[in-house]
Amino acid sequence: MSFRHRHLLGIEQLSPADITAILELADTYADLNRQPHKHGDALKGLTQINMFFENSTRTQASFEIAGKRLGADVMNMAMQASSIKKGETLIDTAMTLNAMHPDLLVVRHPQSGAVDLLAQKVNCAVLNAGDGRHEHPTQALLDALTIRRAKGRLHRLSIAICGDIAHSRVARSNIMLLGKMENRIRLIGPPTLMPAGIAEFGCEVFDNMEEGLKDVDVVMMLRLQKERMDGGFIPSEREYYHRFGLDAEKLSHAKPDAIVMHPGPMNRGVEIDGTLADDINRSVIQDQVEMGVAVRMAAMDLLARNLRETRAA
Amino acid sequence: MSFRHRHLLGIEQLSPADITAILELADTYADLNRQPHKHGDALKGLTQINMFFENSTRTQASFEIAGKRLGADVMNMAMQASSIKKGETLIDTAMTLNAMHPDLLVVRHPQSGAVDLLAQKVNCAVLNAGDGRHEHPTQALLDALTIRRAKGRLHRLSIAICGDIAHSRVARSNIMLLGKMENRIRLIGPPTLMPAGIAEFGCEVFDNMEEGLKDVDVVMMLRLQKERMDGGFIPSEREYYHRFGLDAEKLSHAKPDAIVMHPGPMNRGVEIDGTLADDINRSVIQDQVEMGVAVRMAAMDLLARNLRETRAA
Amino acid sequence: MSFRHRHLLGIEQLSPADITAILELADTYADLNRQPHKHGDALKGLTQINMFFENSTRTQASFEIAGKRLGADVMNMAMQASSIKKGETLIDTAMTLNAMHPDLLVVRHPQSGAVDLLAQKVNCAVLNAGDGRHEHPTQALLDALTIRRAKGRLHRLSIAICGDIAHSRVARSNIMLLGKMENRIRLIGPPTLMPAGIAEFGCEVFDNMEEGLKDVDVVMMLRLQKERMDGGFIPSEREYYHRFGLDAEKLSHAKPDAIVMHPGPMNRGVEIDGTLADDINRSVIQDQVEMGVAVRMAAMDLLARNLRETRAA
Repeated sequence: MSFRHRHLLGIEQLSPADITAILELADTYADLNRQPHKHGDALKGLTQINMFFENSTRTQASFEIAGKRLGADVMNMAMQASSIKKGETLIDTAMTLNAMHPDLLVVRHPQSGAVDLLAQKVNCAVLNAGDGRHEHPTQALLDALTIRRAKGRLHRLSIAICGDIAHSRVARSNIMLLGKMENRIRLIGPPTLMPAGIAEFGCEVFDNMEEGLKDVDVVMMLRLQKERMDGGFIPSEREYYHRFGLDAEKLSHAKPDAIVMHPGPMNRGVEIDGTLADDINRSVIQDQVEMGVAVRMAAMDLLARNLRETRAA
Repeated sequence: MSFRHRHLLGIEQLSPADITAILELADTYADLNRQPHKHGDALKGLTQINMFFENSTRTQASFEIAGKRLGADVMNMAMQASSIKKGETLIDTAMTLNAMHPDLLVVRHPQSGAVDLLAQKVNCAVLNAGDGRHEHPTQALLDALTIRRAKGRLHRLSIAICGDIAHSRVARSNIMLLGKMENRIRLIGPPTLMPAGIAEFGCEVFDNMEEGLKDVDVVMMLRLQKERMDGGFIPSEREYYHRFGLDAEKLSHAKPDAIVMHPGPMNRGVEIDGTLADDINRSVIQDQVEMGVAVRMAAMDLLARNLRETRAA
Repeated sequence: MSFRHRHLLGIEQLSPADITAILELADTYADLNRQPHKHGDALKGLTQINMFFENSTRTQASFEIAGKRLGADVMNMAMQASSIKKGETLIDTAMTLNAMHPDLLVVRHPQSGAVDLLAQKVNCAVLNAGDGRHEHPTQALLDALTIRRAKGRLHRLSIAICGDIAHSRVARSNIMLLGKMENRIRLIGPPTLMPAGIAEFGCEVFDNMEEGLKDVDVVMMLRLQKERMDGGFIPSEREYYHRFGLDAEKLSHAKPDAIVMHPGPMNRGVEIDGTLADDINRSVIQDQVEMGVAVRMAAMDLLARNLRETRAA
């Protein structure tokens, strides 16, 4: 087994073999999750703490279910945003939890880099559940697993990522993962929502959906991250939908069997047409949620194996 | 075993044999709950999600304890009321959870019919934990179990339901259940809090406690649901207590061994005299809470059996 | 085994032998918690309810982890402060939970004596997780275990408790515990933050850190409890730090191997210098958190044993 990391902080640190190792194991957990009896023992005896400094019903639920299904003792900590304004306080909180001997610490934080900082201070395995505009590695991994199951492979695909690229950690992690697996990536969105220096990632950039979607295998829509647009350009929803919202007409420029993705929660009629989102012949949005639990089970299982080996040594 | 349902959405869909099957099993769980070791395996390997769109400390706690005692992996989702104004969003939330493969979904929602709608969309067993003014089936079942244990039978009893009938899903579910089991039901309350068309249920209606309580076996008080009285008549608490609040004098018109019930939380001095509520010779209010856990264990156990059979087929 | 209590309401009720029994068992749990597999069965089949009427992320987390690690079915109840203004309502809430047959009830409440009152009403074992200015017994026990492990003994030590003694249940429980174990206690703080009638506890009182810390073995800092200072003297933070905040200079008056403690969460630069708090050669603040989980495991284990014996009898 190739996965040798202590933490899962970002896609940046992962090799193609690491990514494949997670996806292979996640595939087996996706099967387990469809069984009537869906409880395993991979995390038995371990303590998992979910420490969310930003609200996220769906991601926290996914990690919580993943941990409980594998037998961990799982605890949720709702951290008030007010109490964490100073980096020092974040570390104090982390050190306090660390002293309770968790084995797996799942952290979401509004500041880019906060999770990396925290990982340097604690003895346990840390999973980044999203930090600022930086990374959201389990989202990129669940997207990858969804694509692999729908398309039968995860390389040499043409994949469009559409919308608010600049504010999206989902886009950032996906660009890195899909690039490492040798796919061609097209970024589509208004220039104001495109990050500076995007050329260096080797992506093609479009500000027009019809051109950008031409012949792609996968259409990955992003959520408008209004809460992260500090003072800059905020598009009107109606104008945005007209130009960049995915509907059947725009999708017709992609390959006939192109799949449609969205990380959720969706703004129907803003980023995507509601009917298209529900069309199970094209949309794999529910599959993404399903694969999310499987990928998190796999990531925690692999990290726990390494943790046990390190401690036994 | 006669219970063949996929969901527990309301009393309306249950036959007398269904009701008896739940109560028989709940009786055994009531005994288990009094043991020092009170953990079973009936839900082992299954995932239970409690999805409460209305706050309810007591009902949610009861379902949570019930699930954990039977070995389920239990997760609570606190849903913000603001995010669920549109039916579409409710369905999006439900579909997201459904993709995580829960086996049992316990739902409370402020809108009548919302839980039925949701049940049509998901693959798992749905339990209605209260929807608007519509149904609250586990409350009616726990009331039934409490009556059966106190009175030795659940038929041919004379039962008064008193207070705010119009806004009460508890009353509605109880009227159906007690009617199916062939009891005589008397509804007592001010005409303004009596629902239109109540005659068709075959209940006798009174607007006077002394007359209504005459020779009844069971006195079931209701909570004043001020939060559901939109713009209509709201009685003053003092006037209400004077006319419809239960005290020893009014209770003296019932049978000497009549029991007193209240679904909780009580407004002492509004619906019921505090001393009477605490009188363990007459009040079975604590028994109702106790039977609540047992009934929910039984309902989830029966639904899980059907779920396993369906999936094995 | 000497521990024969039904509840853990305060240090006041414990004998030195009781205290030693808890610490001995906690020592073994502290070792378990450092193992990769840290799950036991001492509370298997039992239901633990955490009922916190005051927010406390760290204490609630510690009890929750302690219970889950020992196999209990653990449920958290977040009680709104608004719903508990009347003592009657507190009892109603307690009786409702009691009817669900918990075995262990962990309670924090803003009013002194509320937890004792509640314990008289329920059938289960009650643990006081802090009540008003009264007691916080598991904090004093974890402090004692931390001292014992750092100093090799828990008697004939010279221990300074510094700061806001008047508003601190932590100080109150510690003074009783350390006195019972035959240590010399010095209280240091401004006269306005010193409780009336403190002389009867047999402590020496100082309003000067340099004098008070002279040759002590243990320096126990307290948190400024501004939320409990109703209308009285509130010191400025800068002035307070200058006179009573612990820094290297003031600590130099203590023994060279004196340890530094704080119950957390710390106000760095108010009660204690941040660098000193992080100095692992002097500060045992993280150890206190670690011992907190172990002490709570031990206390719940011992109470559960007594519960089982009582029920078997």
